[in-house]
Amino acid sequence: MPANRAPLRLGLAGLGTVGIGVVKIVQGHAALITARAGRPVIITAVSARDATKNRDADLSGYAWETDPVALARRDDVDVFVEVMGGHEGPARLATEAALAAGKDVVTANKALLAHHGQSLAEAAEAAGRAIRFEAAVAGGIPVIKALTEGLAGNQMRRVMGVMNGTCNYILTRMQSAGLPYETVFEEARQLGYLEADPNLDVGGIDAGHKLSLLAAIAFGTRVDFDNVELEGIGNVSIDDITLAADMGYRIKLLGVAQMTGRGLEQRMTPCLVPADSPLGQLQGGTNMVVLEGDSVGQIVLRGAGAGMGPTASAVMGDVIDLARGNRLPVFGQPAASLLAAVPAKSATPAPYYLRMTLLDKPGALAKIATCLGEAGISIDQMRQINQPGAQDDRAIVLIVTHKATPADISFATAAFGKTGVMIDAPVAIRIESV
Amino acid sequence: MPANRAPLRLGLAGLGTVGIGVVKIVQGHAALITARAGRPVIITAVSARDATKNRDADLSGYAWETDPVALARRDDVDVFVEVMGGHEGPARLATEAALAAGKDVVTANKALLAHHGQSLAEAAEAAGRAIRFEAAVAGGIPVIKALTEGLAGNQMRRVMGVMNGTCNYILTRMQSAGLPYETVFEEARQLGYLEADPNLDVGGIDAGHKLSLLAAIAFGTRVDFDNVELEGIGNVSIDDITLAADMGYRIKLLGVAQMTGRGLEQRMTPCLVPADSPLGQLQGGTNMVVLEGDSVGQIVLRGAGAGMGPTASAVMGDVIDLARGNRLPVFGQPAASLLAAVPAKSATPAPYYLRMTLLDKPGALAKIATCLGEAGISIDQMRQINQPGAQDDRAIVLIVTHKATPADISFATAAFGKTGVMIDAPVAIRIESV
Repeated sequence: MPANRAPLRLGLAGLGTVGIGVVKIVQGHAALITARAGRPVIITAVSARDATKNRDADLSGYAWETDPVALARRDDVDVFVEVMGGHEGPARLATEAALAAGKDVVTANKALLAHHGQSLAEAAEAAGRAIRFEAAVAGGIPVIKALTEGLAGNQMRRVMGVMNGTCNYILTRMQSAGLPYETVFEEARQLGYLEADPNLDVGGIDAGHKLSLLAAIAFGTRVDFDNVELEGIGNVSIDDITLAADMGYRIKLLGVAQMTGRGLEQRMTPCLVPADSPLGQLQGGTNMVVLEGDSVGQIVLRGAGAGMGPTASAVMGDVIDLARGNRLPVFGQPAASLLAAVPAKSATPAPYYLRMTLLDKPGALAKIATCLGEAGISIDQMRQINQPGAQDDRAIVLIVTHKATPADISFATAAFGKTGVMIDAPVAIRIESV
Repeated sequence: MPANRAPLRLGLAGLGTVGIGVVKIVQGHAALITARAGRPVIITAVSARDATKNRDADLSGYAWETDPVALARRDDVDVFVEVMGGHEGPARLATEAALAAGKDVVTANKALLAHHGQSLAEAAEAAGRAIRFEAAVAGGIPVIKALTEGLAGNQMRRVMGVMNGTCNYILTRMQSAGLPYETVFEEARQLGYLEADPNLDVGGIDAGHKLSLLAAIAFGTRVDFDNVELEGIGNVSIDDITLAADMGYRIKLLGVAQMTGRGLEQRMTPCLVPADSPLGQLQGGTNMVVLEGDSVGQIVLRGAGAGMGPTASAVMGDVIDLARGNRLPVFGQPAASLLAAVPAKSATPAPYYLRMTLLDKPGALAKIATCLGEAGISIDQMRQINQPGAQDDRAIVLIVTHKATPADISFATAAFGKTGVMIDAPVAIRIESV
């Protein structure tokens, strides 16, 4: 149906795993893409840091640019495909150059959009161009499309997701093998699962970037990554994973964004979820996003969150949309209409899992229960654990509370410290209802 | 970004649950839709069989047409929204009239498209108009969009789905309550879960319609509902549900479409799936669709398959796409380029679950095993079940085979009948790998 049947010409910046994945699809599925897009999609030029590297793909037909900015400005490029990464430097400069030169942009760069989404959206609209970023969130899962287009008739209530496969791999491997964090982290590093700066993964930053993009679309607000409450998985202990499993829970690095009367809550933190829920059953590097709207109810999307094929699939979905002539504003509505998010510290009540190591003496537990009561928190379950070989002057106590606010939990755990019966700092982990 | 900022005017045919759901969203979310669509979306005219019925919505601002064909042709209608149902009669006539009059069509009518998809797609393209049908498949799940757009860079390998909530309700209720089919069918009828012709649900026809639409998009073939192998749930016994559960399986009415070297396999039949798989865990009226592509791997989508809100959400997603000016061919590529499907009888091998009631005498089991061996089928698991209170001259034997073709299974079960040891006809249910 598109009026324009001339080939859509891609300039591809970045020839790592994802870039080569895009090359493979463009070369391997030319007829299929032409049928679906209504016109051919071709690559005219590429750029990467090292032109001499062997990349397991025939790049001989493409012009080579050393500078991605030069690539972005080429006359024979209609769409600038950015799969380099990095939220400053070449990726940002080249994206801005592409828009200024009147090119559409398809990007897998969550960091770039999390930091500069608003200004880039404004630049795209001023140029009458699109920025598409399906590949930036949850790999091959078409979640940006589902949220921005498929569910556009909904007032969204909440978006949630496990969106960093490396963290989910580490947490599920800790549980299945009974290994501590440090050991599995080292395994993941050796398997090549970690970013060059591992804190992007295990610190929750990468997943936090993705959550901030979903929140902007869902709630019509400007991307506000700075106000995502971030807590990585580095402090998740194998003890808590095991004890939570005994109680029917799994620990996930879970992002939650919801609009409340006080403002926008965004958090990317370790949470307990029921073991038999879709999120609880997510294994290894798989991602899952949960979208909740006022009409549609709950939609759950699951798939590979990274890797050559899935990420390139997402890039090509965006490219084919552009070839078909379909565009929409970057975050689903005009950039000028996006409201500044009013950030709200998480205050939505939830049950909490508490683990404490107490002096095993009369009255210790009563003191803890008193602290909870004074914080207005009631107890749903309590267990005292006798660990074989543990010192017998101490007791491990697990409590699952009824719903409480994060502030109430902080108040109570601060009070625990004054009881004189705590041996270690207590652990408190939110139980997200899913 | 759309050039056209005039209101998009809907003519709504059908004021049942879904139609009223659409009215509620259009009226309740006017500002949100205008922001997202770039222009207002309004309803100008409606039609339904009974104008006097109280519908819990304010319809006073809309023109009323008794005849949906007249509605479809109105000058003040841009998009004809068909939520009446039925694959002939008014729904078909009005849809054709809308296209002929240059209107886009948004429909929830799976039967109409399953029977007349090719001719309607051709009519739409001749008129330069779109037919969108997200609401026709899997209710609120944006699966048509995911498959046609998000995964457009993939050669699809297989699409699967549990897409009739009523059947899934009946099967999960049979299992949880231990009740026979007839009892739960009657419950479902009293709860209003069944179509006026229940065979549309329990005969697998409705779900088969949906599968045929997914297959057309996935494989670039003309809709071929007539060649969907259909088997409903009427013969699923509570015994098999219980015995399969003991072996770690669930029985689902599962649709599978896959392109093979011999042609297109499409089947909508009761299958066993692992209890701990996403499909196995699907409860009640929820739907699930599994999309498998060569690049993306496996994507799983889950959500409400029916109901006012979810179905209206799907309709509105399509409407907002049209308001944004985004269109694409009905089945994702030009109708003329869709190939006639070469139907292939299911021949993809799979493990099978077999249940037999045998005379409990020496050599009986050996005869069965011989039949399987002669059909080239090897046995993965075998169990003899002693049911309390069962006649002691009979034995129930369960077998899970290694992978076998449906033809091999038919050959073996036919041979069982000649052994002289079978008391009842054997039950054979495919175990789909998911």
